[in-house]
Amino acid sequence: MANLVSRQQFTIKWAYCDPAGIVFNSRFFEFFDWGTWILFERALGVRPPDLGATFGILGIPLVDASARFLAPARFGDVVEMSSQVKEFRRSSFDVEHRLIVRGALAVEGHETRVWAARDALDSSLIKSQPIPDKVIARLQGK
Amino acid sequence: MANLVSRQQFTIKWAYCDPAGIVFNSRFFEFFDWGTWILFERALGVRPPDLGATFGILGIPLVDASARFLAPARFGDVVEMSSQVKEFRRSSFDVEHRLIVRGALAVEGHETRVWAARDALDSSLIKSQPIPDKVIARLQGK
Amino acid sequence: MANLVSRQQFTIKWAYCDPAGIVFNSRFFEFFDWGTWILFERALGVRPPDLGATFGILGIPLVDASARFLAPARFGDVVEMSSQVKEFRRSSFDVEHRLIVRGALAVEGHETRVWAARDALDSSLIKSQPIPDKVIARLQGK
Amino acid sequence: MANLVSRQQFTIKWAYCDPAGIVFNSRFFEFFDWGTWILFERALGVRPPDLGATFGILGIPLVDASARFLAPARFGDVVEMSSQVKEFRRSSFDVEHRLIVRGALAVEGHETRVWAARDALDSSLIKSQPIPDKVIARLQGK
Repeated sequence: MANLVSRQQFTIKWAYCDPAGIVFNSRFFEFFDWGTWILFERALGVRPPDLGATFGILGIPLVDASARFLAPARFGDVVEMSSQVKEFRRSSFDVEHRLIVRGALAVEGHETRVWAARDALDSSLIKSQPIPDKVIARLQGK
Repeated sequence: MANLVSRQQFTIKWAYCDPAGIVFNSRFFEFFDWGTWILFERALGVRPPDLGATFGILGIPLVDASARFLAPARFGDVVEMSSQVKEFRRSSFDVEHRLIVRGALAVEGHETRVWAARDALDSSLIKSQPIPDKVIARLQGK
Repeated sequence: MANLVSRQQFTIKWAYCDPAGIVFNSRFFEFFDWGTWILFERALGVRPPDLGATFGILGIPLVDASARFLAPARFGDVVEMSSQVKEFRRSSFDVEHRLIVRGALAVEGHETRVWAARDALDSSLIKSQPIPDKVIARLQGK
Repeated sequence: MANLVSRQQFTIKWAYCDPAGIVFNSRFFEFFDWGTWILFERALGVRPPDLGATFGILGIPLVDASARFLAPARFGDVVEMSSQVKEFRRSSFDVEHRLIVRGALAVEGHETRVWAARDALDSSLIKSQPIPDKVIARLQGK
């Protein structure tokens, strides 16, 4: 089975670019975040703002993020971003984002996120929770 | 003649929203900026990064911006933004942006921008320049 | 009586600047927002995150914002921002922000904000409320 | 010899925080970027916008960035950030940023950057260059 891959296309705006004329690095982490939300929407059929209520979680907070910058993206460039979950663990998972610009891989990103809910005994605590099998299956394209 | 109106649709991302759960105000000014670039692209048939070279200008810098916030936009909301030039002066112009969310006007923005080029006698200076008639005609839908 | 004027100094970061080498306009609206929070902290002696609970309000949401851009601010520039309330109405008020760069007024901003709380009869509604006299007096330097 | 450690303190603004009430992840990469500029300013005595001209380089572009998020930072939190170069290679180097919030390590970041200049033979190309010994010595606290 192949993982579900969510693809998006968008254009680099002036506001994203720095004095070197290229996208400032922090913007890519906004793109990754959005990539994950859309991946989950496509896998689960749940709109992003409804994800928490649908699955009884607070969200999927980020605990680790990284990016490799291989080539710059410039104002007006069209970006093709593909996002997929590369690994599931009991209560966390890794998402990979690949951004193609002008036909070549420009940025590769990784996020580690947690399936998080309020603790059953102490609602002031947030705890990681086992990811439902159904969620995993859908993201694995099953 | 009716002004050319450029319409765009986009979705509110998590990264745009603040602890009140609504889009933080500064993001709307990013949207307005993008609205103006796309309006000019549609009117003139010139990609945003090529606008300067095509018309021999440095750009269309902003000298005044304002927004009225009538209703909040939230994570996942779909925004319909329409942008048009409302008035041309010799070397400056006013763009209006209207953002519809959930069927109602949520934000109204105005930008005043200048048609700016390097000074012919002293290239270290940036000066406003008369806007070409062709540019005005296209944005006026002629 | 002179209004309380809150002054801050900060340096323009690379991340704030666009391909023209100057601060992108939306960043100034972040600065204005921060200017208002600090003004209220200095006037009222309440840390920004405690403002709502201290006064029984949800916050001071923005309903109108504008800026005039008179001169650019560049990477490394030191900005002197001064913020004050220019007018109080029953439940709303206007804040003015002036940003001095290299000895000259570079940006002038205005915000209109509302003193907002949950409606006493229907807590799902947010309504403007009369601004307490004490709050007004402190911001007027009394 | 101990590496030069550059320390900064700043307060978390409303604009940095997301609907979960915590700093959105991309903002930390803005903080890291600023941490590196200030580290170099303190080590080399060169203002950030003058770094390129002083050393005949285009800049120190980022090729890799990562962050671990251990604890959230919230509106009004005071952050203590310390930045240092952890390793130098011939033409690239690794910067570590540690952010302390409420007495505990909240975020740890790493950047890999390149000492980059225009190619001597083809100025349209950007190439990594050997980092001057003096620069390395200063950042190593020698």
